[in-house]
Amino acid sequence: MRTLYHLWLSPFCRKVRIALAEKNLDFRLMEERVWDRRAEFLTLNPAGKVPVLVDEDGSVVAESAAICEYLDEVYPELPLAGEGPAARAEVRRLTGWFDLKFGREVTEKLVGERVMKRLAGAGQPDSTAIRSAIAAVPPHLDYIGQLADARTWLAGDRMSYADIAAAAHLSAIDYLDAVPWDRFEPAKDWYQRIKSRPSFRALLGDHIPGMPPPRHYADLDF
Amino acid sequence: MRTLYHLWLSPFCRKVRIALAEKNLDFRLMEERVWDRRAEFLTLNPAGKVPVLVDEDGSVVAESAAICEYLDEVYPELPLAGEGPAARAEVRRLTGWFDLKFGREVTEKLVGERVMKRLAGAGQPDSTAIRSAIAAVPPHLDYIGQLADARTWLAGDRMSYADIAAAAHLSAIDYLDAVPWDRFEPAKDWYQRIKSRPSFRALLGDHIPGMPPPRHYADLDF
Repeated sequence: MRTLYHLWLSPFCRKVRIALAEKNLDFRLMEERVWDRRAEFLTLNPAGKVPVLVDEDGSVVAESAAICEYLDEVYPELPLAGEGPAARAEVRRLTGWFDLKFGREVTEKLVGERVMKRLAGAGQPDSTAIRSAIAAVPPHLDYIGQLADARTWLAGDRMSYADIAAAAHLSAIDYLDAVPWDRFEPAKDWYQRIKSRPSFRALLGDHIPGMPPPRHYADLDF
Repeated sequence: MRTLYHLWLSPFCRKVRIALAEKNLDFRLMEERVWDRRAEFLTLNPAGKVPVLVDEDGSVVAESAAICEYLDEVYPELPLAGEGPAARAEVRRLTGWFDLKFGREVTEKLVGERVMKRLAGAGQPDSTAIRSAIAAVPPHLDYIGQLADARTWLAGDRMSYADIAAAAHLSAIDYLDAVPWDRFEPAKDWYQRIKSRPSFRALLGDHIPGMPPPRHYADLDF
């Protein structure tokens, strides 16, 4: 059985979970508390990070960008990386936007301070970082809305890793009730579309003990 | 003419410069002082970051990972991304190691504090960040040495984006004299091999006004 080592609410792990589900590939989830630096896990990924995918044939793939490209190469039905060099460049640019820019400005601060610190027993959340993350969300929602209005999906007329990366990050902070959906209708419409896909269902069932999501988190009609 | 918008000492821009030179693709460099947020540049890359490549046919590609993948797809002679899904996954894992892990632990702090802050007129360097970056270098040199000893090149028996990413980051901090080469012979041997390639020559000629490199920076026999 295919195995994905992951952490709850990691946007990079969520991205891979959605991708695997979009491609109808079965897998089991193994929670990897990376701060424990488990020796067997470090042999799979010396960087000590999740996600790590162990494929059915035993192939080990680490780094979410590497996993996504790998999945599109090995399981090319239902391509998610775009078709043709220009389309793929646009998918990768936007995936980079969400994984790197949104990730650093928003997800890493919100999820890092409010969730990972608590799970790792690493002290109190930094309220300055949280405030700065919350202030950074609206311009990203505007950008998503503009792209979705102009193109149907973020990188073009087909759903791609760009949508999956954006939705993975947004879903993680939505679990923390940090998305002001009502003020950003075009982004909300786009999110409603991706949230309704069967590939999203497992994520909507996530429930971290002691940290329940807000009621709208799993609601398709939020 | 192909154009690469870049910043001196940005490891991500250096990676693309080496890749273009490895593929024998002519280009002109345009320095883009991203902190000025020039409107014409923001239309090329709304993220406001370098590198951005404008290819001969007018294609605009932003984000260094997207540019590298694009170059291997459009100019497949002399492949740098690896051949076959497993090899490419390993190249991408290691490229992620240097661009994300080494980048955040080391390059971003050293180049950010000592160079970019000065160029942007953004205040004094943070000496705590610089110390933490310098302390983080040795384990990476050990890892490079182990990989190079086991495999010839970092991701296997051919030079790839993994080597280019590692060398791009190391060359940027070597310009700041922050690599203790003499204590890490296997990493030094590997760097000597990549530094001797014609694709590296232009980088070794870089000279930022008011910030000369140490003498060994451009020396192939350092």
